Amino acid sequence: MSRNLPVNPGRISADIEALSNITEPGHPWTRRAFSPLFLEGRAYLEARMQAIGLDTRIDASGNLIGRREGAKPGSGIIMLGSHSDTVPDGGRFDGIAGVAAALEVARALREQEIHLDHDLEIVDFLAEEVSIFGVSCIGSRGMTGQLPQAWLSRAVDGRDLGEAIAEVGGSPGILTHQNKPDIAGFLELHIEQGPVLENERKDIGIVTAISGITRIEITVEGRADHAGTTPMDTRSDALVAASQLVLDIRNAASELAKTPGHFAATVGEFRIEPNAANVVPSRVVLLIDGRAEIRADMEAFCRWLDGHTEKLALAFGVTIAPPNRISDNFPTPSHKGLLSTLERACETVGAKHRFMASGAGHDTAWIARVAPAAMIFVPCREGRSHSPDEWAENDDITLGAAVLFEAVREMDRTLTTEKDNGTHTG
Amino acid sequence: MSRNLPVNPGRISADIEALSNITEPGHPWTRRAFSPLFLEGRAYLEARMQAIGLDTRIDASGNLIGRREGAKPGSGIIMLGSHSDTVPDGGRFDGIAGVAAALEVARALREQEIHLDHDLEIVDFLAEEVSIFGVSCIGSRGMTGQLPQAWLSRAVDGRDLGEAIAEVGGSPGILTHQNKPDIAGFLELHIEQGPVLENERKDIGIVTAISGITRIEITVEGRADHAGTTPMDTRSDALVAASQLVLDIRNAASELAKTPGHFAATVGEFRIEPNAANVVPSRVVLLIDGRAEIRADMEAFCRWLDGHTEKLALAFGVTIAPPNRISDNFPTPSHKGLLSTLERACETVGAKHRFMASGAGHDTAWIARVAPAAMIFVPCREGRSHSPDEWAENDDITLGAAVLFEAVREMDRTLTTEKDNGTHTG
Repeated sequence: MSRNLPVNPGRISADIEALSNITEPGHPWTRRAFSPLFLEGRAYLEARMQAIGLDTRIDASGNLIGRREGAKPGSGIIMLGSHSDTVPDGGRFDGIAGVAAALEVARALREQEIHLDHDLEIVDFLAEEVSIFGVSCIGSRGMTGQLPQAWLSRAVDGRDLGEAIAEVGGSPGILTHQNKPDIAGFLELHIEQGPVLENERKDIGIVTAISGITRIEITVEGRADHAGTTPMDTRSDALVAASQLVLDIRNAASELAKTPGHFAATVGEFRIEPNAANVVPSRVVLLIDGRAEIRADMEAFCRWLDGHTEKLALAFGVTIAPPNRISDNFPTPSHKGLLSTLERACETVGAKHRFMASGAGHDTAWIARVAPAAMIFVPCREGRSHSPDEWAENDDITLGAAVLFEAVREMDRTLTTEKDNGTHTG
Repeated sequence: MSRNLPVNPGRISADIEALSNITEPGHPWTRRAFSPLFLEGRAYLEARMQAIGLDTRIDASGNLIGRREGAKPGSGIIMLGSHSDTVPDGGRFDGIAGVAAALEVARALREQEIHLDHDLEIVDFLAEEVSIFGVSCIGSRGMTGQLPQAWLSRAVDGRDLGEAIAEVGGSPGILTHQNKPDIAGFLELHIEQGPVLENERKDIGIVTAISGITRIEITVEGRADHAGTTPMDTRSDALVAASQLVLDIRNAASELAKTPGHFAATVGEFRIEPNAANVVPSRVVLLIDGRAEIRADMEAFCRWLDGHTEKLALAFGVTIAPPNRISDNFPTPSHKGLLSTLERACETVGAKHRFMASGAGHDTAWIARVAPAAMIFVPCREGRSHSPDEWAENDDITLGAAVLFEAVREMDRTLTTEKDNGTHTG
């Protein structure tokens, strides 16, 4: 990297490599939340925070936080962070790159003797990935008062989530009624987990919104008949009808994807019954994962789906119950002012950027509901993530950290007066 | 039933009902081959055979046979039969109706003092259904020298098929090199296991051929991408491509079904990987069950499939390996002379008949490869079979038994000189 950047690539790669060495042997790279390896990773991060003079603590929700007081008490917190936990057989960058970049920003500010008016907090959010407790974003939901009380009782092997949060140093007893932190602004760096930046040779994606996720289950009921003896024209084949549905969902989603705003719909789960060689399939249950940056797109998709399944049922002589929305989250727009800040920061460091939505969920989505927040993406190879093959170039992460650095400097100058503007736009 | 038939409906229904009472409690109707219940059913059948003066034996392959010597030794055997074993949670008629009808023919001949020139044998074939040993038509394959020697070593729970055949009274040691019986002609009555006769209000289906069964496995390989972040137009979705293939297979089979000769193709097994809500499917493995009365139809289907999968792979950006024929049996035509005999028998008893192929496999397919053989279908409700719902009207079975009765009488007059004609036509 020839550019003269305010952050140090070697320190970033050293932190990422150190964390990658803390993995289940034989399952690189696995460091699941609540595991002994996870605590080992946190001990490393805590030591790195302390080495640059940050005051470390575990908050009530189990987040690891390194803090440096600002010059003007009461200005609020500029918070940077991501997560250090992984999925099983996951990668070395998902979440981790964001924690390492945030740490480097704090380190570079200190090294350059830049004193912020705001308090600075570097956060490793607890359990962003789906953990053994079957839910995600524990730390960011908890910090912002959005963790359902009932989740604390989710138990696995005789231990519930509340106990697991206590074991990492959190305080589940006060978690759901604590004061929320006074966040003036929040930024997260993350690998894209998609191919767009790489394909378009961009350095930075400025995330305009985190897509809402809607999961819809559909059950197609046909009739189990003998595959040898039942004439082709007297069948009620659930697989044939469901196959047409899969194609039509793909086509409808592709059309919505061509309009402004990210949209995707995927049939990822699909099972047939009785799944026997010589029996006409009697039932298919499939699950649609829909992602929309613009809520109206998802509403339009769901309306289309309701009508279309009725038509298909008639055309194929099967029964399709009304599509069942088993979960439905709205999109979360980023803070408009922070998007401008990030754009200027990209220009300052010379990063080629584009605006884009996040198709994946992130801790930022939970912070953005209570405070000004935005995030940036850095490219990753072939969009691969949640896989040992996951890869991001250290130069790209470093450039992203430089964008964070410049953005933090501007936020420190501007956010005291503007922090409530623009949160609910977009 | 108002017609004056040469067989007795009450005796047929009594036998079917008696066998239906020999079932696993809580799993009506289950009497799997090689089980104690199966032997109990056979003891009932043997007693019924002996009660009408048949000499009973178990042959080397474990078939239960009731025999009456003919007046002209050396004329060969007129054989009637089917099977008394069931699938798990099966029906009361599949196989059983054929055994009961054959028994009634022997009973009616004796009652009416009709003495055949040919030897008469009533057979309950061993294990026509797929048994715990994973293979079917043990008795009919064995009787005709078509049981692979290696199958005798197939073991389940420490007992192999050879031992199991010995336990029901067979002689596995001589099974594969015994003399084949001198069958002058063979007939089987069976429920249709399809909806055609019921829909067309026919009494009898005269089976022109037993379809060949071809099983073809296809693997579609795409790429596992994040369902939220991967744009719709950069995906390689194995499920989308496989869905198009399912529809195209259905359409190609429907076209072939419109030409002369039974044809059907069904995707009955279908599984996707990784089958996770938020991952674009990376792989689909599906199994086609193809049935063809005319071999050329299956050859045409396979040629089409080979070319079409290549085209689909290109169109959908996936990889599809050449379709893998994991099993491939040719159709078995019935004996032309016996088809004429059955047609005349239908006219004699006043049964409305149609010619049709069997889409399912039967013991007759194995006998037909070594001797003149044919079979008739009787209607069953909604084509349901291999299910506790399976139902056939006793009047329909009785009419079928009357057709068998008249056919046997004609066979006895004609088969001594004609028995080798027409076996390999159709």
